[in-house]
Amino acid sequence: MVVVMEERASEAQVEHVVARLIEMGMDVHRSTGVSRTVLGAVGQGRADKELIETMDGVKEVVRISEPYKLASRTFKSENTVVTVGDIRIGGDEVIVMAGPCSAESEQQVRAAAAAVKRAGAKIFRGGAFKPRSSPYSFQGLGEEGLRLLRDAARAEHLALVSEVMDVSQIGVIDRYCDIFQVGARNMQNFTLLRELGHARKPVLLKRGISATIEEWLLSAEYVLSGGNKDVILCERGIRTFETATRNTLDISAIPVIKKLSHLPVIADPSHGAGRRDMVAAMARAAVAAGADGLIIEVHCDPERALSDGAQSMFPAQFDRLMAELRIIAPAIGRSICLEPMPRRGWGQ
Amino acid sequence: MVVVMEERASEAQVEHVVARLIEMGMDVHRSTGVSRTVLGAVGQGRADKELIETMDGVKEVVRISEPYKLASRTFKSENTVVTVGDIRIGGDEVIVMAGPCSAESEQQVRAAAAAVKRAGAKIFRGGAFKPRSSPYSFQGLGEEGLRLLRDAARAEHLALVSEVMDVSQIGVIDRYCDIFQVGARNMQNFTLLRELGHARKPVLLKRGISATIEEWLLSAEYVLSGGNKDVILCERGIRTFETATRNTLDISAIPVIKKLSHLPVIADPSHGAGRRDMVAAMARAAVAAGADGLIIEVHCDPERALSDGAQSMFPAQFDRLMAELRIIAPAIGRSICLEPMPRRGWGQ
Amino acid sequence: MVVVMEERASEAQVEHVVARLIEMGMDVHRSTGVSRTVLGAVGQGRADKELIETMDGVKEVVRISEPYKLASRTFKSENTVVTVGDIRIGGDEVIVMAGPCSAESEQQVRAAAAAVKRAGAKIFRGGAFKPRSSPYSFQGLGEEGLRLLRDAARAEHLALVSEVMDVSQIGVIDRYCDIFQVGARNMQNFTLLRELGHARKPVLLKRGISATIEEWLLSAEYVLSGGNKDVILCERGIRTFETATRNTLDISAIPVIKKLSHLPVIADPSHGAGRRDMVAAMARAAVAAGADGLIIEVHCDPERALSDGAQSMFPAQFDRLMAELRIIAPAIGRSICLEPMPRRGWGQ
Amino acid sequence: MVVVMEERASEAQVEHVVARLIEMGMDVHRSTGVSRTVLGAVGQGRADKELIETMDGVKEVVRISEPYKLASRTFKSENTVVTVGDIRIGGDEVIVMAGPCSAESEQQVRAAAAAVKRAGAKIFRGGAFKPRSSPYSFQGLGEEGLRLLRDAARAEHLALVSEVMDVSQIGVIDRYCDIFQVGARNMQNFTLLRELGHARKPVLLKRGISATIEEWLLSAEYVLSGGNKDVILCERGIRTFETATRNTLDISAIPVIKKLSHLPVIADPSHGAGRRDMVAAMARAAVAAGADGLIIEVHCDPERALSDGAQSMFPAQFDRLMAELRIIAPAIGRSICLEPMPRRGWGQ
Repeated sequence: MVVVMEERASEAQVEHVVARLIEMGMDVHRSTGVSRTVLGAVGQGRADKELIETMDGVKEVVRISEPYKLASRTFKSENTVVTVGDIRIGGDEVIVMAGPCSAESEQQVRAAAAAVKRAGAKIFRGGAFKPRSSPYSFQGLGEEGLRLLRDAARAEHLALVSEVMDVSQIGVIDRYCDIFQVGARNMQNFTLLRELGHARKPVLLKRGISATIEEWLLSAEYVLSGGNKDVILCERGIRTFETATRNTLDISAIPVIKKLSHLPVIADPSHGAGRRDMVAAMARAAVAAGADGLIIEVHCDPERALSDGAQSMFPAQFDRLMAELRIIAPAIGRSICLEPMPRRGWGQ
Repeated sequence: MVVVMEERASEAQVEHVVARLIEMGMDVHRSTGVSRTVLGAVGQGRADKELIETMDGVKEVVRISEPYKLASRTFKSENTVVTVGDIRIGGDEVIVMAGPCSAESEQQVRAAAAAVKRAGAKIFRGGAFKPRSSPYSFQGLGEEGLRLLRDAARAEHLALVSEVMDVSQIGVIDRYCDIFQVGARNMQNFTLLRELGHARKPVLLKRGISATIEEWLLSAEYVLSGGNKDVILCERGIRTFETATRNTLDISAIPVIKKLSHLPVIADPSHGAGRRDMVAAMARAAVAAGADGLIIEVHCDPERALSDGAQSMFPAQFDRLMAELRIIAPAIGRSICLEPMPRRGWGQ
Repeated sequence: MVVVMEERASEAQVEHVVARLIEMGMDVHRSTGVSRTVLGAVGQGRADKELIETMDGVKEVVRISEPYKLASRTFKSENTVVTVGDIRIGGDEVIVMAGPCSAESEQQVRAAAAAVKRAGAKIFRGGAFKPRSSPYSFQGLGEEGLRLLRDAARAEHLALVSEVMDVSQIGVIDRYCDIFQVGARNMQNFTLLRELGHARKPVLLKRGISATIEEWLLSAEYVLSGGNKDVILCERGIRTFETATRNTLDISAIPVIKKLSHLPVIADPSHGAGRRDMVAAMARAAVAAGADGLIIEVHCDPERALSDGAQSMFPAQFDRLMAELRIIAPAIGRSICLEPMPRRGWGQ
Repeated sequence: MVVVMEERASEAQVEHVVARLIEMGMDVHRSTGVSRTVLGAVGQGRADKELIETMDGVKEVVRISEPYKLASRTFKSENTVVTVGDIRIGGDEVIVMAGPCSAESEQQVRAAAAAVKRAGAKIFRGGAFKPRSSPYSFQGLGEEGLRLLRDAARAEHLALVSEVMDVSQIGVIDRYCDIFQVGARNMQNFTLLRELGHARKPVLLKRGISATIEEWLLSAEYVLSGGNKDVILCERGIRTFETATRNTLDISAIPVIKKLSHLPVIADPSHGAGRRDMVAAMARAAVAAGADGLIIEVHCDPERALSDGAQSMFPAQFDRLMAELRIIAPAIGRSICLEPMPRRGWGQ
């Protein structure tokens, strides 16, 4: 930590800050310049940046280490690859997860799974416990939804990711799914994150709509510090003043994460855009910017979807997007499901 | 719901939208103008605004009722007054809640309670379960902290509010506290909100740092719709581009809430400002704007606080602030603890 | 400037940064710690923070002096008081500027001037050149509007402030007005600011809707560095994600400016709120937070105003607000036009 | 315009609103439902949305036409192609503009022009009048800079774009450049926009850092309504809470503009990212999302650039980016300078 004193700081003020830093367990190096004093504080102590900043005579405090450790590229320089069966997230292949917002019925889930598989998705997505802004909206089918999703994923040889909203749901999600999804609203549900640190399956951690990248990596740190090394970050749009889109998908977060962390990062263009007609453009942009994967909502009859119909793609749109992505991926030395499974007559 | 069609919308597109609205359970009134068609949809059905907006030929959709009901002034026009013992939140008196960020020790909690009582606070605040951005920060004393807080509050005849982070903590918080505080990060923890809808004590619901006022009222609706009518809203700062303050306390939210809802609304200038030297100005502003109360962090030795030391006021600053507030409150027809209890020799 | 190197920075990288800093005219002090190197760079040189930050091996760069000088409290510790005739802005009295958004007609301007004078305003406001988002909106009466405003101000013994949009308008505004207003959209019109640095009348500089406080003070610096010492800062709302109000009036900017700068700061609750029914609450909040003044839109028939009718107060609302402000001001040791001029039969 | 009345609105309130709408020149159609009244107002009148919204009994007002006309796809459905010599912006080819932030010297400008030409850029960029946040920063070489830029562009057969900051600079920019650039800070300098509406060369209009897309199109409308049909929109990053990047490049603005307007839209990843190591990722993302072009800062010695060195690419980075873009463009049916000019021994 570097503490920059004000020009007018008195000797007593400087000494008071030094004393407090030492009390916090830090070693302090003092550098007195012509116009002001700068203090360098190092060590294993716990120094509270905000608190030091409010002390009399202090102008500014700058941390010289990230507040996260295990999530940092300083800690681990090579990329983390999260594996789910033979799927490698964070490797050379761009992995696409797709499926409906919510499980609604066996027929709906089956049709969606078949459609996304055909287009080249590797992982099936779908919600059974739905965090809805209004208590009057459809809240999901619960465990019955998970059963439908698992059956459909199994039939199509897809892995499965679904959202866990609360510690009490960890057990049931674990029975049916391969990846725990933590939604944007729960990015700072620290009780949940801490429990998932003890889970034995990967965690897909969405960025909160107003979370800084540093806070996002600190939330990943909660999971990592519990012993679970398999965290997949997911950018899904931040809240800005612009109202033309539901959120502003922060594409620049992708190269920033690649620089700061070794963890894989994917994008969710469906929530980022909020409108079906913008999803393909944002999906292409995310892959071009270096995303390790995508998670996309696809529904065979989006006009009748019980949630997020506005942003769910038709299967034909998704097919076309996958074809476009196969052209883009090589520009950054990646591939994307180059040899999709041939159709084998599964029902729709 | 009013659906405005595009100028170029075809008759088939209009009919398709009408058919879908009817299928959603709405009655549709069609108004064909010179340049475009406008549809009015009313009824008890479930019409998905975002979905209709993405249908071909649709230009814009506007809801004509709030998505929340019980929280709305349309539903209940007179102000709700939440009572805790003989304390009335939302009445003529501006109620001040104050105390340390976290319970740290018996001595610290006792001293803080005595200081805030003396200055005129009616409710003691303090955390035992702390939501911290970093897994390496102090996480609170847990139940032991609650016991310390309760003892100090009892000694000073103060009511007690403390944060509940998770459904699993509801029972223990209920045993020690008078008001459940839901923090900004949990404003959309719907599992928690739904459970608190069945609690028999008031809920102080902080606004999420990037929550719109509509989302905040929808979160209140989760609690209200469960049967718990005692929700106190708390503005605590939103996230903006400005970095000079930790957050931007959205003072304008106070008159907006007063217009839209009957629920009491208080402000948290400590988190809103994030720096001790800005807290008094923001507290005065909140009361002048019509807040029903304040929640303020006070610590007798903030430089040694285990959390939020930077924004905790010294007792002498808090005394002075209370004196200023007593001048301001009458400007809006309010009072603020005009006759504080005389000192009765409680320890410091 | 303090340059913090990465832990893994090589000796060659450190030396390269040192060499570039010296080339930029800085003296460099090197401090090598156990895990990383920290460089302190001081002197009169021009060191580009952003550029140094992108150099290999650099983790972070922190400036240790504000980029503005003349606007800073470090440069001048006592408050600046701007005088216009016998009006002192930044002194003990809270100064209120009020009047219509635009000059529309002689009758309208006269009536507004009489109304605001009666309530205690000291300065008349009104626009003749209007910056409008749409080319199809009312663009103001130009010089004729200035003449009407001046005549009305003279009749009521009020000073006059009006907006200058462009260098070419400086001369005409100067002939009619006492204070040049620079609007939010022009806060970074550097050509205009530089010219106003040579003017002999005060400049009221509004904050841009997405300007940081640092950028705002840098814009003040453009005027100050040209020789014009009379800059009045005006907070008028920043753009955030919240749509319930037109902007979010950043009340916390008031205490922040008071800490960083010696310049007076006022608030514009009309543009900050954007709705007549929120203006009084925000005006009270601004004064309670320590604002040196207010600028408020008042119109005798706001429903027929040619611009900003939605946010213009009725005279009776303004009267009542002034009465409330007279109660609040003493809480912070201020007064507000304690003895308004008696009515003397000026026409309406 | 559709006016939705409150449920509790009285008949007198409804009639008052109707009367005012008629007074504003609108035809009003009234629809009385079970719970509330909805008014449809059409015609050529001037109806002030914000004002109607503050009238007693009004719940919400929704406009049913965009406030801009000439910039809208409703007005002109086919894409506008802006031509500069044989360069077509908005056609099948993605056009790249590149060059230094500022003209600094003949050698620097020549080297940059040669480098960007070789890599496939069609238009040279460079500033002579620089809008700088601080009055103490390098402000550009003025007309001498324009001469250097023109000479370098001519030598490499490149077109030239440079920024105009003020009406007084239009003449000199016109003498040297092919395209007028209006910077983000001037997006609402309406005096300047109106004058450029009479210019005979294209205008590259950058989005303000906190401008909504609607405001941006309204600014384009100022130019278009003056008779100049050649407006190129340029997304360059918006201001959000995230501080890891200088701005957040709003990639989603690209598909939104394509939907709302017929004008070409390009992206500026240099200002959007603010750091050289993020520029390539954002440039690829913009093209993948459908941008008609890019404007990129390239400098042969960015560590010694007098402005924006941190975000200027090295020529070798730019070469590599152009190669990546050639792979991506076909994914969206575009090309990008497929046959760059052979090297012909120009300087370096």
